[in-house]
Amino acid sequence: MIYPRVALIGLGLIASSMAHAMRAGGLAGEIVGYARSPETRAVAKDLFCDRVTETAAEAVRDADLVVLAVPVGAMGEIAAEIGPHLKPGATVTDVGSVKQAVVDAVAPHMPADVHFIPGHPLAGTEYSGPRSGFATLFRNRWWLLTPAPEADADAVARLRALLVAMGANVDEMDVEHHDLVLAVVSHVPHAIAYTMVGVADHMRRVSQQEVIKYSASGFRDFTRIAASDPVMWRDVFLTNKEAVLDILGRFAEELFVLQRAIRMGDGDHLHAYFTRTRAIRRGIIEAGQDTAAPDFGRSAPPPDKG
Amino acid sequence: MIYPRVALIGLGLIASSMAHAMRAGGLAGEIVGYARSPETRAVAKDLFCDRVTETAAEAVRDADLVVLAVPVGAMGEIAAEIGPHLKPGATVTDVGSVKQAVVDAVAPHMPADVHFIPGHPLAGTEYSGPRSGFATLFRNRWWLLTPAPEADADAVARLRALLVAMGANVDEMDVEHHDLVLAVVSHVPHAIAYTMVGVADHMRRVSQQEVIKYSASGFRDFTRIAASDPVMWRDVFLTNKEAVLDILGRFAEELFVLQRAIRMGDGDHLHAYFTRTRAIRRGIIEAGQDTAAPDFGRSAPPPDKG
Repeated sequence: MIYPRVALIGLGLIASSMAHAMRAGGLAGEIVGYARSPETRAVAKDLFCDRVTETAAEAVRDADLVVLAVPVGAMGEIAAEIGPHLKPGATVTDVGSVKQAVVDAVAPHMPADVHFIPGHPLAGTEYSGPRSGFATLFRNRWWLLTPAPEADADAVARLRALLVAMGANVDEMDVEHHDLVLAVVSHVPHAIAYTMVGVADHMRRVSQQEVIKYSASGFRDFTRIAASDPVMWRDVFLTNKEAVLDILGRFAEELFVLQRAIRMGDGDHLHAYFTRTRAIRRGIIEAGQDTAAPDFGRSAPPPDKG
Repeated sequence: MIYPRVALIGLGLIASSMAHAMRAGGLAGEIVGYARSPETRAVAKDLFCDRVTETAAEAVRDADLVVLAVPVGAMGEIAAEIGPHLKPGATVTDVGSVKQAVVDAVAPHMPADVHFIPGHPLAGTEYSGPRSGFATLFRNRWWLLTPAPEADADAVARLRALLVAMGANVDEMDVEHHDLVLAVVSHVPHAIAYTMVGVADHMRRVSQQEVIKYSASGFRDFTRIAASDPVMWRDVFLTNKEAVLDILGRFAEELFVLQRAIRMGDGDHLHAYFTRTRAIRRGIIEAGQDTAAPDFGRSAPPPDKG
């Protein structure tokens, strides 16, 4: 057991997966949960919490670890509410996809004798809510921590131990770099997927029925990440504005270069561009961050991989 | 058996999958193959062809069905070569991702007593070559045919019967509409995926190692389709230029609207936009065109789908 009492504030995909993983590994003595909605609390009590409470303040009482697992835009209010009720020596972490905005919203409310260690699990599915969690969500996924330089080394080590025990790999980086890296690998890809799905939705000359029927030719891959939780993603774009706009600008530039090559009929440019991108896919598979199975394993495997 | 002799010209993912599917279903008497590369021919002879030939002209001799499965840019030359050797009454089809350019390149070389019925299976994986095929690739996938209005009904029905026997659903549409629909559901999504991967590849402040390690947060989904065959995709963009540029223009517009909403901090717009796109995902799953498993089934399933 790593923490005698863990409080989960917000009971969606990430918190419920953490609860399942902590139970499976015997990592927490008691798991207490709070969510705004009574329905969510009832599901959590049924499926993965030892106890749920009617306020966040009550949930964090005597907790050794408090996990803020609410949308980024709701972090400040929750932090203000729980601040006065935190146990001295407790660790508070969060699972927000943006780190500077969370630090700005949460840190001012943390008592001096509490360890605030911001975190971000790079794991998820397109589903959300308390029924969507499962114990293996974090297995072989990265969990980024962005502790302040003066953070307590023992508190960081203990949190790391929990994350590793849930199957995650842990890296530390500074807050600003986190937000830039995530803009590249996550936030802008989501913005682009939402946009592509939006374009298809607006077409007049191509019916929505055609878009759906013929989606296996590429489009369907975009619709999965464009089906993610809208509140979470609204908050990500509102709070990581600068890095997202920077990367979106680069994306638009790059797209115009490709567009121009198409317009000019520059086959050599296109071929070289399309060849280079294959190497990154290979790197991701070699790093164990995606399946090598054709079509993500949605089709049957080939009979001979030669 | 639907065709006594089938000739496959080009022996990559689609042709090899057709061969496996035809063998599994006993749909062809003899399967003859031709590819430019002797290595490819040798693999095909080993794995799925009854016979391979050293020229395309030889392969099509006495064939009842000829399938042109070469990149779109190579169709014209092949058609010119085989035209004089086709059996009267034979059917010629192709599997190119673009239809107007194929019709323009192939039709002039077809003798009057041959049925040319352009086709396009909306199926594939990110792998290519003669070892990548498998018999179930077309199962529950759409295969679009774009026969000319004066096409022979019996020849179309026979080809349809083959495609259905391989597991595909068949739709017919006109050539121009095909090229527009595919620009939306396939060509532009691929262009965008290639561009997103290109952006990540260019970043100086975010290392390629970071992009690879942290790709499970969204980026990795783009790298799969950006790992598709570069020659095939070069030819698609060179030959469906007009529709692709039209849809890319709409995409850029739509992206700028999203970018503006982010810059202005318009949370209501973002939330509404991100909510609407979920419906299309649901439609695709209900139509059997993608898995409902979280994360394409790459993670373990949730313990309770309640």
